[in-house]
Amino acid sequence: MNSGLTFLIAARRCEIEELDQLEHTGELVGVIGRLVHALQRERGISNVFLASGGQRFAQQRDRQMAECLAVEREVRATFDRLETGVRRAGNGARLFSRVAWVLPGLAALPDLRRRIGALALQPEQATAAFVKLIAGLLAVVFEAADGATDPEISRLLVAMFNFMQGKELAGQERAFGSAAFASGGIDAERQQHWLHLIESQERCFQVFSDFSDAPLVALWRGCQPKAAVAERERLRRTATTAAPTHSPLDIEASQSWFDACSQCIDAMKDVEERLALHLRQRCTDKIAQSRSELEGYRTLLDTLQAQSARADELEPSIFFDDTSVDEVPVPYGRQLERSILDMVQEQSRRLQSMSDELATARAALNERKLVERAKGLLMAHRHLSEEEAHKMLRQTAMNQNRRLIEVAESVLALAEYLPERPKR
Amino acid sequence: MNSGLTFLIAARRCEIEELDQLEHTGELVGVIGRLVHALQRERGISNVFLASGGQRFAQQRDRQMAECLAVEREVRATFDRLETGVRRAGNGARLFSRVAWVLPGLAALPDLRRRIGALALQPEQATAAFVKLIAGLLAVVFEAADGATDPEISRLLVAMFNFMQGKELAGQERAFGSAAFASGGIDAERQQHWLHLIESQERCFQVFSDFSDAPLVALWRGCQPKAAVAERERLRRTATTAAPTHSPLDIEASQSWFDACSQCIDAMKDVEERLALHLRQRCTDKIAQSRSELEGYRTLLDTLQAQSARADELEPSIFFDDTSVDEVPVPYGRQLERSILDMVQEQSRRLQSMSDELATARAALNERKLVERAKGLLMAHRHLSEEEAHKMLRQTAMNQNRRLIEVAESVLALAEYLPERPKR
Repeated sequence: MNSGLTFLIAARRCEIEELDQLEHTGELVGVIGRLVHALQRERGISNVFLASGGQRFAQQRDRQMAECLAVEREVRATFDRLETGVRRAGNGARLFSRVAWVLPGLAALPDLRRRIGALALQPEQATAAFVKLIAGLLAVVFEAADGATDPEISRLLVAMFNFMQGKELAGQERAFGSAAFASGGIDAERQQHWLHLIESQERCFQVFSDFSDAPLVALWRGCQPKAAVAERERLRRTATTAAPTHSPLDIEASQSWFDACSQCIDAMKDVEERLALHLRQRCTDKIAQSRSELEGYRTLLDTLQAQSARADELEPSIFFDDTSVDEVPVPYGRQLERSILDMVQEQSRRLQSMSDELATARAALNERKLVERAKGLLMAHRHLSEEEAHKMLRQTAMNQNRRLIEVAESVLALAEYLPERPKR
Repeated sequence: MNSGLTFLIAARRCEIEELDQLEHTGELVGVIGRLVHALQRERGISNVFLASGGQRFAQQRDRQMAECLAVEREVRATFDRLETGVRRAGNGARLFSRVAWVLPGLAALPDLRRRIGALALQPEQATAAFVKLIAGLLAVVFEAADGATDPEISRLLVAMFNFMQGKELAGQERAFGSAAFASGGIDAERQQHWLHLIESQERCFQVFSDFSDAPLVALWRGCQPKAAVAERERLRRTATTAAPTHSPLDIEASQSWFDACSQCIDAMKDVEERLALHLRQRCTDKIAQSRSELEGYRTLLDTLQAQSARADELEPSIFFDDTSVDEVPVPYGRQLERSILDMVQEQSRRLQSMSDELATARAALNERKLVERAKGLLMAHRHLSEEEAHKMLRQTAMNQNRRLIEVAESVLALAEYLPERPKR
């Protein structure tokens, strides 16, 4: 029986190590969230700076770049701790690859900033660059969520990833809308794109609400600035329903749009920080709980070892007894044996139900994976760049008035007709 | 760029570590296969020994027990190496829990053998005990397959698990049929059970054929003893279509049945060993390949470090350039930068497609998981033991003439009507 208990302890230790790792992941996700936020602000400021020919926001830009640099140092330090840490669970390779993609992006930031400072880029080019870098950072968060082995933490990470993604889409919508209002007009294609930004955003926040804990969902519902939300809605409606030729957009609404969006986004920042805090707290709690249960096992193991020094190797065993409830009292040794067998079964059941829950949380990540797979297929088959493949999917979705995920599924359903894809 | 490459290397190292782990898993699965085979033989021999009141197979039994003990020592040694090894990927906790369940079973074997030797058990009781222990050993193999992160290895492990499971069902069918023929008669319920054993067995070998490599499938098809297979089929038909009241079974067929089944099972043993060997070989090959690719990265990193000592931090970066093919030749430094970005993207794509393939392999394990979940649900809701829950599912499948998996799905579909199941 000793060795059975030893493996029960080993199983617990595994769980604790994974929770430790998740705690680090929680830190990583938190600090990435802050860098993403800082870069989103820098993106907005750089836009205004470029659009005004360097006349506006020069000082804000300097301050924001300094803030970005400070957070970037923290992110790099967290990356370094990742690397030096012991091996990761299942998806370590994918997580590291995502980091490997982000780091050249961070290294390219000084050059990007230099070009913005020299007014050598169009606002759209600068925006696209920041969008690319932020997408890379969010991909790290995605992998972190996908690699979590504890179902509750995985659920919170899925909520967190979707919240961050929703916030990024809100930021992109702010920039897109600002440009549209500032230009005084909008065409049908841009209206469709705008609606897609809104729809994807809402789906992200819906997944967040489905997967987050009730108090955080309540916080999110409660903290949204009502007036700003209403104003944003009004302007969204105005812009996305305007008949292109007859009613051009009100250029004056540009500032009002930007302010309303900014208020909404700032409120998101608070929720995101609370989410990150909650995530780390749940990791800490779970580690403490698992440690105390591990102590219980260890005490039992000591008792058993003291006992087995006397026990007969051939003492009748109850492993093969299927009548688990004995009416007659069993000797102490057999009670202990029964209780260990029960513990092993209980643990197996618990791990099984954890694994089921985990599958549910991960299903939410699947939608994104399907889109990525469809993109990969298009890239291989049509020799497109990632950007082109994404644009093609999005364009098809717009043209056919379908959701991106539906188009991705259609593409994947045709996979076998596309010769480049190697078949198993 | 350096740090990007460093993480590319870290990602590779992760993959190599996981492959190392899989190599150990392959060894574990191989040695468990041998123990299962030895226990299956001991089960058959013990049955005859008990049925003959200790008159037959006493010597064979002694020899077989000695063989079991030798293989058991190897299994235990492999378990011990597992425990002392570094942490496992994702499902370490579940794998260890399965081992924790098996060890008390192995510890209880001497007592079981003592009772068999003293003729203190009925053949059915002895059979049930061996079935329970073998199921525990196969559950370890199942977790090993479920925890594999390399899609090809995962595929081979899924094939291996299903082959072992099919072989175990063949062993159970041999025992069940022997008892039926020996008793000279069969009722409708036993006929149904027999058909279920055949059906489950065939499904296992079908999954094996779907997931294994072509040469192994060919080996499997080629090595089946044709005459024995035909004789087994004839006796299966006789027994499962016999009208219970009118045509009792031919008692003399008992030996012929046993021999035909044994020939089939022995042929399986060879395939299983080849499978285990192939699995380990593929791990070794993959590790060698990954190591050589890792060396390539390292060489590149050295080149880059030598270079970056001279390089300007603010040298224009290409991360944000979306036009990936420059017509004009780029300076050496930028070529290298481009090639690293390409490597990162290539690696991400490769890992993504591995993850997709892996999902396919794991889907095959899902069927078993669904049955386990349905059992768990019945255990919680109806306060049944695992055995009772399994019997209930099987009975329902028989009565309704449906597959076990279909019944399990129906049970799970009703989950929300069962109050004990906690809802997320």
